[in-house]
Amino acid sequence: MTKSEQTRQLVAEVALRMFREIGFAKTTMRSIAAEAGVSVGNAYYYFASKDDLVHELYLHVQAEHAAKAAKALEDAADLTSRLKATLHTGLDVMAPYHRFGADFVATAIRPTSPVNLFAAGSTAAREASLDIFRGAVEGAKPPAPKKVRADLPELLWLCYMGVTLFWVYDTSEGQQRTRRLVDGAVPLITRGLALARIPGVSKILDDVLSLSRSIRG
Amino acid sequence: MTKSEQTRQLVAEVALRMFREIGFAKTTMRSIAAEAGVSVGNAYYYFASKDDLVHELYLHVQAEHAAKAAKALEDAADLTSRLKATLHTGLDVMAPYHRFGADFVATAIRPTSPVNLFAAGSTAAREASLDIFRGAVEGAKPPAPKKVRADLPELLWLCYMGVTLFWVYDTSEGQQRTRRLVDGAVPLITRGLALARIPGVSKILDDVLSLSRSIRG
Repeated sequence: MTKSEQTRQLVAEVALRMFREIGFAKTTMRSIAAEAGVSVGNAYYYFASKDDLVHELYLHVQAEHAAKAAKALEDAADLTSRLKATLHTGLDVMAPYHRFGADFVATAIRPTSPVNLFAAGSTAAREASLDIFRGAVEGAKPPAPKKVRADLPELLWLCYMGVTLFWVYDTSEGQQRTRRLVDGAVPLITRGLALARIPGVSKILDDVLSLSRSIRG
Repeated sequence: MTKSEQTRQLVAEVALRMFREIGFAKTTMRSIAAEAGVSVGNAYYYFASKDDLVHELYLHVQAEHAAKAAKALEDAADLTSRLKATLHTGLDVMAPYHRFGADFVATAIRPTSPVNLFAAGSTAAREASLDIFRGAVEGAKPPAPKKVRADLPELLWLCYMGVTLFWVYDTSEGQQRTRRLVDGAVPLITRGLALARIPGVSKILDDVLSLSRSIRG
């Protein structure tokens, strides 16, 4: 690792720790630089703004999620277990940042933010996150119904965004309500998918998927 | 109207116009006061922060939505028409604020914000918004399936929050994609509700409603 890479990593680590410990609003570029023992100009050289540091945090959490999910999926065969493993490992890696969660969401939700997951500019970050859900769906035995298989990872990822939003507002001890939501909702999703074989349901599902595709354009 | 009420209304009107015209970030309490011709201290007397002005905007938009929806519902009998009317009038009243939408969502999404619709402190504001959806469901002919009738307004209101989020990111001309989403999704929702009579679907729906109640609990 070059000196420059080391400094970059140091600034990022200090920032992430300060976000966790004193919160996003109170952490300034100036205090990050002071804590890391670098000049303010040097800190700005690596990260143009706090938003860029949020992006760094997001990539860090995502890489950890991918690694933990891959490991947990080794022991999970059916779709229900695989989805639970994927969502719970996501909550595991976000846990240290719960206090910071609201700031993260408020930052990430702006269409112009570099961490906005719905904006056109963040395709790579969104794809990396989607890949975790692709892995969960693709390895399932028995496989997910063929009709929904291609669209399922993106729909599940959207559910994960919903779970994350719920988690941000979850003030229960250790965010136990979010854990219960995951444990309760995942079996309903997989049972719901099994209904795709009922003709009336199948027709509506076709229309839901076709609407979803046309809207995403 | 007393002098004090007049001043309060003037400050609010000026702020809302500035939010629309130059955006939330660039509007300061100082510039609002200057534009309204009152002292900064006077402006702060009525609104402690820009967040409070966002709350004012929210109440204003909501009152307009309630009035427009009530009028549109006079000519709509079936649930599909009533839901479309409710959602489209919501989009109508939000339209002038589209540019400001992202700032509004980013402000409103913070758990500590006075305009956060999921937080415990904003029960009254959420209830007022829910009432619009209660009105849409209650007056429907034929009525919504009995099993879901009590929970439906809240679930539809959650859908409306999702539509609003979609609208914030919708950069199409006049947010036409959001209009198409409403027109496409509403018939799918009402057709989906009709499936509640199929035993397999009915059982899952029971479990969805029971999970939703236990999580909100």
